[in-house]
Amino acid sequence: MVKKPTPDSTRRSERSRRAIYGAALALVAEVGYAKTTIEGIAARAGVGKQTIYRWWPSKADVLLEAFLDLGEQAAEQAAQQAAGLGVQPAAEYALPDTGDLAADLKYVLRATVDELLDPTFEAPARALAAEGVVNEPLGRQFVAKLLEPQLQLYVRRLRAAQDAGQVRAGVDPRIALELFVSPLAQRWLQHTAPISYEYTDTLVDYALYGLVPR
Amino acid sequence: MVKKPTPDSTRRSERSRRAIYGAALALVAEVGYAKTTIEGIAARAGVGKQTIYRWWPSKADVLLEAFLDLGEQAAEQAAQQAAGLGVQPAAEYALPDTGDLAADLKYVLRATVDELLDPTFEAPARALAAEGVVNEPLGRQFVAKLLEPQLQLYVRRLRAAQDAGQVRAGVDPRIALELFVSPLAQRWLQHTAPISYEYTDTLVDYALYGLVPR
Repeated sequence: MVKKPTPDSTRRSERSRRAIYGAALALVAEVGYAKTTIEGIAARAGVGKQTIYRWWPSKADVLLEAFLDLGEQAAEQAAQQAAGLGVQPAAEYALPDTGDLAADLKYVLRATVDELLDPTFEAPARALAAEGVVNEPLGRQFVAKLLEPQLQLYVRRLRAAQDAGQVRAGVDPRIALELFVSPLAQRWLQHTAPISYEYTDTLVDYALYGLVPR
Repeated sequence: MVKKPTPDSTRRSERSRRAIYGAALALVAEVGYAKTTIEGIAARAGVGKQTIYRWWPSKADVLLEAFLDLGEQAAEQAAQQAAGLGVQPAAEYALPDTGDLAADLKYVLRATVDELLDPTFEAPARALAAEGVVNEPLGRQFVAKLLEPQLQLYVRRLRAAQDAGQVRAGVDPRIALELFVSPLAQRWLQHTAPISYEYTDTLVDYALYGLVPR
């Protein structure tokens, strides 16, 4: 089957969209959320501000989509890397499930460490996280659309482990995931201590096997 | 023994200091860290800005001390409440040690929930935390002087539990404490989900006894 050629107008829109995402992420990283404006994003992307208003109602919406796009690109890259290393790539929107819960969680958290230390992601993510701390509606919007969907992947993986008898029956997966996800988030957000693969591996071991002697 | 009377000049300084702390915390809560200035703090506290510069080299230092003072006041209040409830009050700068690690951690985390939901503390704490996310030197300063000393209290309590054979010998207490402290911090900072006593009690149980069946 011959692939239908993409019309020129769609290709132009796609280029504009990419330029707008890039401009929005760069600006928020440089000047912070409060000083980022639709006008500034338009000027930097080389488009008219009406082009932006036609597609997005507010700067929060532009940034949200720019971030979702960044996440999708990272996921694609990770899948390609995993394939290159002979690792079973995760099905779209699911954590790996090899049957070994500890190994799967360690694998995903190591990838998260890489992402948090990637400058492309780090500067805009920090600017938005900082704004979300003091701007509750924005914080809640980003949680609902960006963070919580990611956390729900852990919920599903932990439920599968629970069904397999590898996690205690009474455990609430939505709270349980925080034992290894939140420490990494706090170290990164608040600069409380360095992050590394060894650190996230340790978190998984402590969370799964507990601190008191078995 | 008769208490030596406080000289008038010291009492005046003490009053100014309280006024400056209060003004600094109120301002940072209202306009954020970036827009808080020594001039603004001085005007609101009703003192000359030279009075502030005489005692503190920068606004970060004023805010840091204002916060330390707020923490000390909260600790005194908690000790009085604990005494009123017949609970053994914690020795200064130590977590309670009744020999029951789970109960002691739950007690302290419940007090932290109260503090995080107290509006006196919440607004300035959010403003500073938000700035620390994007301003690494400030973040590190606040961690070193405010947050890490509190975390070290958990390190000591966990070491005592380790000495008593109640925590596995190989566990690093500095990482272990993050399993129950960081989830609470992230929910509060990022508005990811509500916080409550039931929630922090659950975190302690999961962290101590692990997620996999025993």
